[in-house]
Amino acid sequence: MAPVDRLLHDVLDQRVAQLEAIDPGLEPLGREIRRLVVGGGKRLRPAFVYWGHRATGADHDDVAIAAGAAVEMLHGFALMQDDVMDRSNRRRGAPTAHEILAQEYRDGELRTQAEASRRPVGDSADDDHRGDPPGDAAWFGFSAAILASDLAVAWATELLASATLPEGRAAAARRVFADLRVEVIGGQYLDLRLAGLRDASATDALRVALLKSGRYTVTRPLQLGATIAGGGTEVIDTLQTYGDAVGTAFQLRDDVLGLFGDPERTGKSAVGDLREGKRTLLVVAALERSDPAQRAALSATLGDPDVDESAADRVRDIVVDTGTLAYVEGLAEQRQHVAKDALGNVPEPAKAALSDLADLVVSRAV
Amino acid sequence: MAPVDRLLHDVLDQRVAQLEAIDPGLEPLGREIRRLVVGGGKRLRPAFVYWGHRATGADHDDVAIAAGAAVEMLHGFALMQDDVMDRSNRRRGAPTAHEILAQEYRDGELRTQAEASRRPVGDSADDDHRGDPPGDAAWFGFSAAILASDLAVAWATELLASATLPEGRAAAARRVFADLRVEVIGGQYLDLRLAGLRDASATDALRVALLKSGRYTVTRPLQLGATIAGGGTEVIDTLQTYGDAVGTAFQLRDDVLGLFGDPERTGKSAVGDLREGKRTLLVVAALERSDPAQRAALSATLGDPDVDESAADRVRDIVVDTGTLAYVEGLAEQRQHVAKDALGNVPEPAKAALSDLADLVVSRAV
Repeated sequence: MAPVDRLLHDVLDQRVAQLEAIDPGLEPLGREIRRLVVGGGKRLRPAFVYWGHRATGADHDDVAIAAGAAVEMLHGFALMQDDVMDRSNRRRGAPTAHEILAQEYRDGELRTQAEASRRPVGDSADDDHRGDPPGDAAWFGFSAAILASDLAVAWATELLASATLPEGRAAAARRVFADLRVEVIGGQYLDLRLAGLRDASATDALRVALLKSGRYTVTRPLQLGATIAGGGTEVIDTLQTYGDAVGTAFQLRDDVLGLFGDPERTGKSAVGDLREGKRTLLVVAALERSDPAQRAALSATLGDPDVDESAADRVRDIVVDTGTLAYVEGLAEQRQHVAKDALGNVPEPAKAALSDLADLVVSRAV
Repeated sequence: MAPVDRLLHDVLDQRVAQLEAIDPGLEPLGREIRRLVVGGGKRLRPAFVYWGHRATGADHDDVAIAAGAAVEMLHGFALMQDDVMDRSNRRRGAPTAHEILAQEYRDGELRTQAEASRRPVGDSADDDHRGDPPGDAAWFGFSAAILASDLAVAWATELLASATLPEGRAAAARRVFADLRVEVIGGQYLDLRLAGLRDASATDALRVALLKSGRYTVTRPLQLGATIAGGGTEVIDTLQTYGDAVGTAFQLRDDVLGLFGDPERTGKSAVGDLREGKRTLLVVAALERSDPAQRAALSATLGDPDVDESAADRVRDIVVDTGTLAYVEGLAEQRQHVAKDALGNVPEPAKAALSDLADLVVSRAV
């Protein structure tokens, strides 16, 4: 999605300049959004916006690019908050925003201390401040990353508003975008809540997967594209069937990659989710399929801050031995078929593109 | 602003119902937004939107009510995040959202543990989960409150979009609303950053006051109202002069009330800001005016988690003895005069209403 990249790049240049015009001290917030949003990502959501638009039979139109960029900017918000709430140190092989912002806070302290110490004795009012508590740099980092994510939402909203549309369609597009926002926020809440429930079921985990990934990643971006083109209920319904299935498959694949993927390629470590005690469908299904000894081993690992690679290997063995890996991969393939079957009436080239995207989602290695 | 209250009430009923239709488990998020947004507040920002609208000479119009409600909903977002970032336990005499959400997480754990223990031995797969770590309830509370605040922003944006306006004015109103959002987010960041800087100056603190309170609380709401009415640059500029002055006076008064106000009336404790080490203008100016002994005492108190009422009394004495209280109250009065002088060309009844609001802001006890 090169046109989306170009638009995001230009919009971020403008927004960051406006931000620094308010106060130069705001530079770190803009810089962290830019680093996350233009620094990587599969651009899957803009692709779904684009092909949702084309699925109505509409020709290429820049409004679909603007809407796709808006969804990708909103995704920057979701990722940044996700990293804070999971207390993740790294994303895509680099430190997360809150880590960097916390470090700068520490450095700022050190700098001003160093400056104070260079001043002649008796010169500075600041000498008396040296005994101040250092402030809680980690907490500052979390707070600042949340504020950066808030800016990303504001900019996403402006990007969507910049797509020039007849007023009826603009209002409908805003509603789909609002649904998408509410679903990703709600999905994140249910995901966090799940980690605290001892009796989480596979049904609960599938529900979170549907909201966080199905609706947010696939169905709503597709429907946003279709709505912009003035698509009717038939195509909107088709895209819902396809999108919910592909999105759930996407999350199932994510669960598998989270445990079995190559950290060099996925950019995240397998032990992170285990330490956090995440109740992914893979984990919940493995618990349901385990014998008491396996279950005890799994339960002891989930949420243990000392999980290491050998503990992760034991979890992998249990997930394989209980047939859970095969079960989850089977579920993902089943969803892949449901999705492709739904595309019957979608015109080319959207049909072929969406079919390929369904394959990509289930077979991806990153 | 009774019409604003009615609209907020109705909109929240709708939005909360939609949220629970997505998943009944999302009820706590909607409930906490409602509790904050309809449960109190001075409705100062909707009043400024309303009188900014009337300042153009426009008659009463419901679009100004919808825009005022949107700003008030956004304020719910700002307060909820502010409480998380300050780790405040209480607001308006009640527990903050993150406190309540954390407690529910703890209760949910207890409940499922109790349920598990009632099951016959050997019956439940969950028995083996009892050894799970309890999860970090406080962290869950903070995360869930951030997610509730995210919903409040989404709902604020929808409220603004619901104000029926000619498309040119709607786009202009969205830009003012976007400015307002970016300024409150940026102001919050600079405020947090200030607490970590040892060499914060009165100028830095005044800058934060201008962004967080001047622009966000007064100037942008006024200009939003004027923009909705199609107001020209003359009235927009007048409202900026008035708004920046009143907003800064508002923040100065807030600083004074934070240290000297009656906690029974303000709903917040004086020791909270001291424990957090907040660099308000009052604090920074007192540091600048202190002799070495006073400065050492002030510095030792700021950020000390054990600050009690007697430590707060010592701070009060220093703020009075150094002339800082008189200085800050003088600054606020000066801003009040600047604001009222700017109203020369504003038509009645807006002129009288805005003049009264300037008086209210500087003399308020809550």
